[in-house]
Amino acid sequence: MIDRLIERIIAKKNPSVVGLDTMLEYVPEHVVNNYGRQRLDLEGTANAIYEFNRAIIDAVYEYVPAVKLQTAYYELYGPHGLETFRKTAEYARSKDLLVIGDIKRSDIGPTAKAYASAYMGQTQLNNDAIRVYDLDFVTVNPYLGSDGVMPFVEVCKKYGKGIFVLVKTSNPSSGEFQDLNVGTGKLYHWVAAKVNEWGRELAGSTGYSRVGAVVGATYPKQLEELRKRMPGVYFLIPGYGAQGGGVEDVLSGFNDDGLGAIINSSRSVICAYMRSPWKEEFPPRRFADAARAEVLRMRREIDTGLSKKGLRPW
Amino acid sequence: MIDRLIERIIAKKNPSVVGLDTMLEYVPEHVVNNYGRQRLDLEGTANAIYEFNRAIIDAVYEYVPAVKLQTAYYELYGPHGLETFRKTAEYARSKDLLVIGDIKRSDIGPTAKAYASAYMGQTQLNNDAIRVYDLDFVTVNPYLGSDGVMPFVEVCKKYGKGIFVLVKTSNPSSGEFQDLNVGTGKLYHWVAAKVNEWGRELAGSTGYSRVGAVVGATYPKQLEELRKRMPGVYFLIPGYGAQGGGVEDVLSGFNDDGLGAIINSSRSVICAYMRSPWKEEFPPRRFADAARAEVLRMRREIDTGLSKKGLRPW
Repeated sequence: MIDRLIERIIAKKNPSVVGLDTMLEYVPEHVVNNYGRQRLDLEGTANAIYEFNRAIIDAVYEYVPAVKLQTAYYELYGPHGLETFRKTAEYARSKDLLVIGDIKRSDIGPTAKAYASAYMGQTQLNNDAIRVYDLDFVTVNPYLGSDGVMPFVEVCKKYGKGIFVLVKTSNPSSGEFQDLNVGTGKLYHWVAAKVNEWGRELAGSTGYSRVGAVVGATYPKQLEELRKRMPGVYFLIPGYGAQGGGVEDVLSGFNDDGLGAIINSSRSVICAYMRSPWKEEFPPRRFADAARAEVLRMRREIDTGLSKKGLRPW
Repeated sequence: MIDRLIERIIAKKNPSVVGLDTMLEYVPEHVVNNYGRQRLDLEGTANAIYEFNRAIIDAVYEYVPAVKLQTAYYELYGPHGLETFRKTAEYARSKDLLVIGDIKRSDIGPTAKAYASAYMGQTQLNNDAIRVYDLDFVTVNPYLGSDGVMPFVEVCKKYGKGIFVLVKTSNPSSGEFQDLNVGTGKLYHWVAAKVNEWGRELAGSTGYSRVGAVVGATYPKQLEELRKRMPGVYFLIPGYGAQGGGVEDVLSGFNDDGLGAIINSSRSVICAYMRSPWKEEFPPRRFADAARAEVLRMRREIDTGLSKKGLRPW
């Protein structure tokens, strides 16, 4: 799976992915109106979000290797929201995009297995097994240790999928526990070492493992340092754009081969039509064009950054 | 909310709760057959699980203060599974049970807020706000630090709800990170101290806070020690029964007032009809009676244990 991700990054000359963290308030009125503006219920809302997501995917699929779906924003709209999550993932796959489920799950063994089966594997029914969400990657929280993570790794092995384990998150208080001193290092160093270990059996032909790490763009020094400690681990880097991380901040997440990192941007893309400079150019009806414009701007920005450092892999 | 939990614990003379972690393989054939045994799809499966859950709730609601629903086992069956999760919670509430959602979520601020709103608060629609799941408590993972937890605390304040934060989990490798030495203590001590702090504003009239902690029955020494460090924090103790924790192991989770802990048991109750001694007494048709018998056995066992230590609060 990590090889397929790298293939698409190179083909599209773009290591950045679009986060479809769609809330109702981001969906323009003309879309919402299709589902009954006045008496919009959860089902109508979920359908409006699906229409919005489809339009964004149509506008950007030629330019990005993958989309990331944050489950929280679908769970917010109940079971109908999850159906929109499922259909959005299916539609993205039909456009040859890889799909990352930002689910940040973890639990004791049998429960972690249920999560892994639901999101990347298959669900056993009476005489049948069904792939429910069939995502390519999910994010995993490490707090429970190996036996909370290994069920995900097992499903990755069996179905050719991948995970990204939270190592150093992008939020302001991520240091509260993650930066605590443990022996000669920090807690996130210990997690990083375990991620190296968990991924050892899952290296692809490119040398990168299907067990990746989440490292926030908002901590560029730690990103640089973790890059050195985890050479064969792919990074999913959130926090670029709306959360404040700039292009300089994310470049240290790449290896010398110009690979090793994908950069997620959610609100700055899907809400581009609401923000300068794009809102001056694109009316709400053209929200998807604004998203494409922002994706192309980001791609140029990252390409220029990588090029300056001699790291362009395409 | 913690006061309402304590009220029910005393009224029912029982600090143990039933975990409805229902997988299809636990549902007896005669229930499954109602939904088309041969060609059972996700919707039929989810409906069979709902029928099973209702029967268990009917059998036990007079004897337990709350039920715990593990989201993984509902997500396993896709959006239909989540609808069964929602309906099960609604049905449990209609029987005056409190409902704990074992969701173990956590994320950066706005995303944590979306989870908290979905599960305990309300979802903002266009002209309306809807309570989607309206659970009484959820479990939260602390790895992201305060700003991943505070959105849950805020929703607790606003809607009178509560949370249980993972401190020391019941799984075999929980020590891998949680037991790492940090300064003069362990990582889970640092998490415990934060849980004390997060809960300070949310103390109920009984002196217990609405910010609780998850501490596994499988680590009785740590349970005893954490009990002393967190006097005003309610514990949710998993791992009793199927995971190997016995009654002696959980008793140290109680305070001198005989309160301060709820004990969860999932498979040993809902699968009671499949296991000795109950399977000899109850055929699969009477799975709910077997669950009730096991609930009453546990209640007696815990009551006797508390009584011996002079801790019986009823």
